[in-house]
Amino acid sequence: MRLALAVCLGLSLVAAAAQARDVAKDVSYKDGDTSLLGYVAYDNAKASAPGILIVPQWMGLTDYEKGRARQLAGLGYVAFCADIYAQGHVAQDTKEAGILAGKFRGDRALFRARLNAALRALRASPTVDARRCAAIGYCFGGTGVLELARSGADVLGVVSFHGGLDSPTPADGKNVKAKVLVLHGADDPFTPKADIAAMEKELKDAGVDYQLVFYSGAVHAFTQPMAGNDPSKGAAYNERADKRSWRAMLDFFDEIFGR
Amino acid sequence: MRLALAVCLGLSLVAAAAQARDVAKDVSYKDGDTSLLGYVAYDNAKASAPGILIVPQWMGLTDYEKGRARQLAGLGYVAFCADIYAQGHVAQDTKEAGILAGKFRGDRALFRARLNAALRALRASPTVDARRCAAIGYCFGGTGVLELARSGADVLGVVSFHGGLDSPTPADGKNVKAKVLVLHGADDPFTPKADIAAMEKELKDAGVDYQLVFYSGAVHAFTQPMAGNDPSKGAAYNERADKRSWRAMLDFFDEIFGR
Repeated sequence: MRLALAVCLGLSLVAAAAQARDVAKDVSYKDGDTSLLGYVAYDNAKASAPGILIVPQWMGLTDYEKGRARQLAGLGYVAFCADIYAQGHVAQDTKEAGILAGKFRGDRALFRARLNAALRALRASPTVDARRCAAIGYCFGGTGVLELARSGADVLGVVSFHGGLDSPTPADGKNVKAKVLVLHGADDPFTPKADIAAMEKELKDAGVDYQLVFYSGAVHAFTQPMAGNDPSKGAAYNERADKRSWRAMLDFFDEIFGR
Repeated sequence: MRLALAVCLGLSLVAAAAQARDVAKDVSYKDGDTSLLGYVAYDNAKASAPGILIVPQWMGLTDYEKGRARQLAGLGYVAFCADIYAQGHVAQDTKEAGILAGKFRGDRALFRARLNAALRALRASPTVDARRCAAIGYCFGGTGVLELARSGADVLGVVSFHGGLDSPTPADGKNVKAKVLVLHGADDPFTPKADIAAMEKELKDAGVDYQLVFYSGAVHAFTQPMAGNDPSKGAAYNERADKRSWRAMLDFFDEIFGR
């Protein structure tokens, strides 16, 4: 009888351990006095995993970013979605998004503070290996990860997906410690060639390790199905570029995390 | 006794089959009346494998290309190194290399004929899956694979490693069937920005599927240890870019060969 009970208990524990896997939930955190609402996803069965900060596109932290976080958790990472706008606020429409994003693009110090608060929250997440963290960002979030790097943040790499590449203070390139991967639509009309050239100069002058990838036929927001299918609008989903850029990001993670 | 003999025979056959693996050898072939000496490498134990044409850098078909062929064979591909200069001729020095390469860069029809002869030889190689072929090229060979694509060759993809990107006939972009992957040193002084822009326009106007990747800190010949370690010369090995570009090529092969 005791043997049977012991076996049942043992099996239950094993089952419980195998089942304690995907966690995905909102996370309250702070930037000074400002309350923020992020989102974390990870596999609780892994004792330790590299952490990925996800910086959202200009609408705010939406189901899109949460989906990406769960996708990364399924691949064995701890993924934390940043709340840039505070209170988990999501813009009602693109007009409001433009105003909100403009506030942060126009005040890079504020943007960097908000980004670093999110990075601290990532590092405080369960199971994360704080020595192996990276950041990825979409559109406005791509600008965000570059700003995180320019703030001198201690991340191993940053990945911009069709991000805004401009910088009002290119000298800050000298602060970049991270390796940089810029994944961009060759036909993205929202990034002037002058911005791309300026970013290359900024990173080159600072001796930053960067890779710059252009995908033909892709415009802005090419990783985002909600952008629709009409490239003539300047923003559109591009499945081919989405898959390729995701693969490029995973290769980059393998390299920087030493897998 | 007969059982023992049968068992021994069976074991010998199994051992023989397991051992019939890496083949690497010179291959005589023709371009019209011109005798050419290529090199093929493949795993004879595989019934069928995608074929990769390797177009050499300007010195001709050297141990470098043969090494790459064996490396690809080890990964399960049939690799065939093209002989562009005929008779397996290798330049004595860079001065001669410049003259030989110049002859083909100055006569793209001849270059294309020589490239297509090599592609036919690849397709005639044992074990190759003729429906799944690609071409890769280094420097002058990078120009070569782009010319192969511009000739309308039926390859699934071409990969240029720090290739010359210029074209005297950009309208030929319309002939390109292959997907194109251009892997380039961000600091390569031998490729004017105007050439890069012209190639992008050529491919974009023709609706070609291309990817363009720049590696920071890499100059010309970044995949080639024989180029030395001094980037100030304009050509130098760059291990980081070499590894990343090789990975990018393998991802590209996975995609175009449907693995």
